[in-house]
Order: sequence, then C-alpha cells, then structure tokens
Amino acid sequence: MFELLKTDSHTKARLGKLTTAHGVVDTPIFMPVGTQASVKALDPRELLEMGTQIILSNTYHLNLRPGLDIIRAAGGLHNFMNWEKPILTDSGGFQVFSLAKIRKIKPHGVEFRSHIDGSLLFLGPKEAMEIQRVLGSDIAMVFDECPPHDAPAKEQRLAVERTIRWASECREQPRANGQKVFGIVQGGSNPALREECAQVLVEMEFDGYAIGGVSVGEPEPEMLKAIEFTEPFLPANKARYAMGLGTPAQMVELIARGVDMFDCVLPTRIARTGTAVTHTGAFGLKGGSYKVDFRPIEEGCDCFACKHFTRAYLRHLLNVNEILGLRMVSVHNSHLYLKVMTEARAAIAAGTFTEFHRNFIANYTPSQKILAQRKRETER
Amino acid sequence: MFELLKTDSHTKARLGKLTTAHGVVDTPIFMPVGTQASVKALDPRELLEMGTQIILSNTYHLNLRPGLDIIRAAGGLHNFMNWEKPILTDSGGFQVFSLAKIRKIKPHGVEFRSHIDGSLLFLGPKEAMEIQRVLGSDIAMVFDECPPHDAPAKEQRLAVERTIRWASECREQPRANGQKVFGIVQGGSNPALREECAQVLVEMEFDGYAIGGVSVGEPEPEMLKAIEFTEPFLPANKARYAMGLGTPAQMVELIARGVDMFDCVLPTRIARTGTAVTHTGAFGLKGGSYKVDFRPIEEGCDCFACKHFTRAYLRHLLNVNEILGLRMVSVHNSHLYLKVMTEARAAIAAGTFTEFHRNFIANYTPSQKILAQRKRETER
Repeated sequence: MFELLKTDSHTKARLGKLTTAHGVVDTPIFMPVGTQASVKALDPRELLEMGTQIILSNTYHLNLRPGLDIIRAAGGLHNFMNWEKPILTDSGGFQVFSLAKIRKIKPHGVEFRSHIDGSLLFLGPKEAMEIQRVLGSDIAMVFDECPPHDAPAKEQRLAVERTIRWASECREQPRANGQKVFGIVQGGSNPALREECAQVLVEMEFDGYAIGGVSVGEPEPEMLKAIEFTEPFLPANKARYAMGLGTPAQMVELIARGVDMFDCVLPTRIARTGTAVTHTGAFGLKGGSYKVDFRPIEEGCDCFACKHFTRAYLRHLLNVNEILGLRMVSVHNSHLYLKVMTEARAAIAAGTFTEFHRNFIANYTPSQKILAQRKRETER
Repeated sequence: MFELLKTDSHTKARLGKLTTAHGVVDTPIFMPVGTQASVKALDPRELLEMGTQIILSNTYHLNLRPGLDIIRAAGGLHNFMNWEKPILTDSGGFQVFSLAKIRKIKPHGVEFRSHIDGSLLFLGPKEAMEIQRVLGSDIAMVFDECPPHDAPAKEQRLAVERTIRWASECREQPRANGQKVFGIVQGGSNPALREECAQVLVEMEFDGYAIGGVSVGEPEPEMLKAIEFTEPFLPANKARYAMGLGTPAQMVELIARGVDMFDCVLPTRIARTGTAVTHTGAFGLKGGSYKVDFRPIEEGCDCFACKHFTRAYLRHLLNVNEILGLRMVSVHNSHLYLKVMTEARAAIAAGTFTEFHRNFIANYTPSQKILAQRKRETER
C-alpha cells in the first residue's frame, strides 16, 4: 500500500506514495477534515482546485447523522458526498471519549449517550469497523481509547491495553473492497508505553500506523515528545499518521520527525472566526489595520481567495457576517496547508529539506499560546 | 440606454436590451441581491456560471459598513467586490424607512439612527446620489419615501410629494461616469396617486422607472394592482423595474404586465433555512421524506448544485448546519430565478409567451400564505 520513495539524509523526512482504492496519494500529505461528510464551507470543486488528494471523515458523527442506512442507500460515503478521491475515516474512538456524555467502558467497546440527543449507543471495534465498511472509506482506523493528556499513569496503561485488544478485534472484522486499516498507537507521554503499544501493533501488521493521544490539549513540547517516543518503533515501509495535528510549523517539524500524514480542523475552524494562516503565521483579518489593505491574504498565493479578493474586502465580509468571508478564508487556509505539503515533498525530493525546514521555522511566528508553552518547557 | 426589441402581441411582456457602463443586460432580467457587497453565500464565479448579468447592492448598508472611504479607496464597488458586470444600487430610501430607528423627515432628507450602532445619520437626495456616485454603480436609484402598505391616505400623498421633490433634486446631482438614474414611482394602492407620481417623474426624463411601494407587506392582489395602476403611465422606451419582487410565479405575472427588471432576497434568504424553489413551487429540503431521495433538487436543472448533489445529501447538510447545504440551495434558487427569466425572454422572442405564462402559472403551486391572500381577495 505504501511505497517509500526517499528518506531525507539529514532528517527523518520521507517522500512516499500511498495507493488506495480511490487513487494514489503523495506523502507527506494533509487531509482536509470533513467530519459530517463536508469539509466545512468548501465544495468538492474548491477542494480539488486547491490540490486535495484525500479527505478525512468521521464514523461517530456519520453514524449519528445522517445515520448508516442513508449512506448505505447512497452506495457509500464517496457517492453520498460526491467525492471521488480517497477518504480516510476515523473510528469514533476519539469522539466517544471527548464528545459523548456519560460513558461506560466495557470489554468490547463503550456504552455512551449521544452528544446530540442523549440516546444510548454502543461503539466498539466490531461496530466501528462495520460502520466504516458501509461508509466504504479507503482507509479505516481501528477503534481505540484516547485518554486526556493529563490522565493518571494507570489510566494511560489501561487505555493502551484496551487499544491493543480492540485493535486485534478490529483486524478480524470484514472490510469494504480494497479497504485498508491503520492501527493507532496510544501511551500518552510515557516512552515505555508508547514503545510497547507500537511494537504490539506492528506485530499485528496493519496497513499503516497512526500516532494517537496527541492534539488532546497537551503543550507542544509534550506532543513532539509523544511523536519522538513512538516513531522509532514504526516500520519504515508503512505510512505514519499524526492524528489531529497541527499548525503549519508543527507539521513541518513532524515531517522532519518521520510523519507522513496529517489532519486538522484548524484551517477551517479559525477561518470561521476570521483568522488567516500564511507561511509566516496566523493573523486576524477583522482588524482595523486591514480596512484599506488591498493586498491578497498572502502575497504570491495562487488560491482562489487570493486571486480574487483583497484583505479589505474579506475584512468587510467577516465583520458584517457575510458567508463569503469565512468561505474564502477557509479556501485560503486549507490551500496553505496543502501547499506546505507540496513544498515539503519538493524539498525532500530535491534533497533540500533541511534548508526548507530551517527557513520555514525561522519565518513562522507561532501563536502566543505556543510560545508560552515552549517558554515553560525551557524553564523546567 | 434601453432598447425595446419586441412587445408580446397578447400580453404586455417586453423583450429588451439595457446598455450600461459595464455591459449589456437582456430583459426581462432578475438581479441577485448583494446588499452588503456580497450576494449572500455566493461567490462571483458561481454568479457568472448561473448567468447573472447584473446584481443589486445597497447605498444604506454600504455607507454604514464598510463605509464610503474604504470603497472610494478601492476605486469603487466593482473593484471592491471584484464584480465586473453591471451593478444597480438602491438609494437607501427603503432602508431608512424600514430598518432605521427614530427617524425625522426633513425637507431635504431624513435624519435617523443607524440600526447597527444607533449613531445619528442623515440621508437625502444629495447624500444618496453622492454615495452612489462614489460606489460607481451603473444604475443609481433616486432617494424616495417608501411608506408601509397600510399607511393612511394622507401619508401616502405626502410620501408621493416628497418622492417627487427629492427625485427632482437627485436629478441635478453629479454622477459617476456613464451612471444612469432611475426614478421611483410611489403612491401605494391609490390609482390616482400612482398616475400622478408616474406622470411627473416621466416628465423629468429619468433613464428608467421603478415601481416602489411594493413588497412592503401588502397582499399579492394589492401588489399586482399597484403595478397595473402604474405601468400604463410609464414610457415604452424606458426600462421598468418592480422593486423587491417576487416569487417565480409573481415575476412571470409581472412580465406579462410589462415589467422588465426584478430584484428579490427570496432565493438566497429561503435557501438559508433550507427551502428550495423550482418551476413547480417551493419545498423545505430538511424534511424526512428526502432522507433517501437521491434525485437533484430539480430534475433536469443544470445548476452546479443539481449537477453535483442529491436531495438526501443536501438535507443532511442542512440538518447538521453545514454551510455547504445553504450554499448549494442558494446556488440552485438563484439559478432558478435567472433561468425563469431566460425562459421568459425566449418565449417572448418566439411569440409563445402566452403559452409559457399559462403553463408556468398552472404548474406553480404558490405558498399557503399567497393562496390565502388570493382567497380573501376573491371573497371581497
């Protein structure tokens, strides 16, 4: 499924090719997030124009709404949403542990109440794989337990044990035609747990490996460590996917640490509150300083938003709550995420990734929050 | 400015050509409404793809936000919003009388408080024309007084007197290069007032004539009468514009009564609550009956939404508040409005408008509200 085309000689960055039932994906890659069968505010044409190769969608949400019967009747998720390229579906594990109210962990899954209407539901390895089979995603994720980053050691260990047991159950379930399945490594910030979880899952021979238990509220230094503790135990000939991450600078850091795949709601989520992201950092477009700024969001950007509209116009639209404003910032931000991947791939191919990495980080101003996290880490 | 190409032999329907500084518009025409310099939820490419020839924007709103200085700095409204085709701007008269709080009518305009922040503002013929000059619209509207449909006779008369005086002041103001100015006929449902207002304005020789004081809450039969009371007094060689109307069936009725131009927020407004409009009427797409309905919104429709998405998918998106849902219904509804105009023009050109008119009305099921209005009228 995964072909490793090249490994950078100075970093762990990798150039690869992921072959799925709906086409080939170049890695490193970013997957725009279509939680409810729609990448928020964007249409499929816009996604294709910005170079989207694969999107992510979600078992938990689609199972609640519209419900599996409707997607089955449509002939699967690709048909339902009119998206012909690859789809990766998350298993719902993360949502059961983050969104659902009142949950009870049982041997073969989790009983929980829907965050929509409070109805009692059950999701476990068998259910999650059956839903993903019907969705017909190209890549299904195993059903895992994802504890909060500050969970006590005992809870982290239990989560790893369950994640492993459930992964082995997932492995045995029926799949859609050509559907691949990725394991998910948990273990929080405990190196021994990460190693153990990775090694057992690798023995099970999944089609690829995700690093979970990141993007769960932990500070950036801890996130980087979780990746570093896990990556050495993952096989070189399988794709590695860091779940739910990150900022553009974080993605570049993670590519340098051997990660191939990313997904993140950030580009579309911050767009809806008027924040644009560029190669040099993020900025709020609503501010008065853009009143008569007739430049595009980012100079030299060839996205639809930057080719057609100025900061002054988008600022106006955002301030008067016109949907076109958040649409166009969503276009720009998602395009930027994909563009950074294209640039990283080109740099790895050309043998200039070290320089690309250094320049990218030097030019990118992280958010105040991330800077504060780094400062605390340095002072420890 | 207006070339009358053909008048239907059985009805008053007209085929025409409106030449503006930014291009030629075929009439009858529908103008999508971009109140705040954006047709809600749509981008310019979508507008062009659906055949938009001219859009409407608004003096009152743009003057408040972003403010005239910003649009002046952008080089006018076309540049600001990146729309190269014609723009008609309403004068703000309607908004001053419908939206603004605490207004005081003075000889040369209206003092009022902004509906946004309560600041004290003044808008009259001079101000409205100056704003429209800076906006650089292709067609500017005179500043009129638009009373509610149930205003007492005395108020209707005063409104006509002011509308006439202000129209004559508007006529004398400086204009943008090539900018045309339309007069607005008021007079409510009083035939004598309508005639008087029309005749005085026609003597002033405006570039076109709007029928105002419709779409102000009056029942449909009263609206049709207001048009019928006014139209005979308008010159055949000038375009006629029925402001703020209407449903597809109403537009066809008004074309049959000699109207050339329409604008209405309906197609995008009802789209945002999940109502789609077709050749046979409107229907709410959120309902359970569309759960597994894999037909497009309207069979045979060639809009972007109908070419790409099913009712079942759009229903899901609308129910989970995904922006793509209301976007695609906005695309379909606006396209439908433009399509009805294209069909009407073709029918007039082919000499089959009577048949088109009869079939359209026979196939179109009006809303319960409009049916009730018609029933009350018949029973009187």
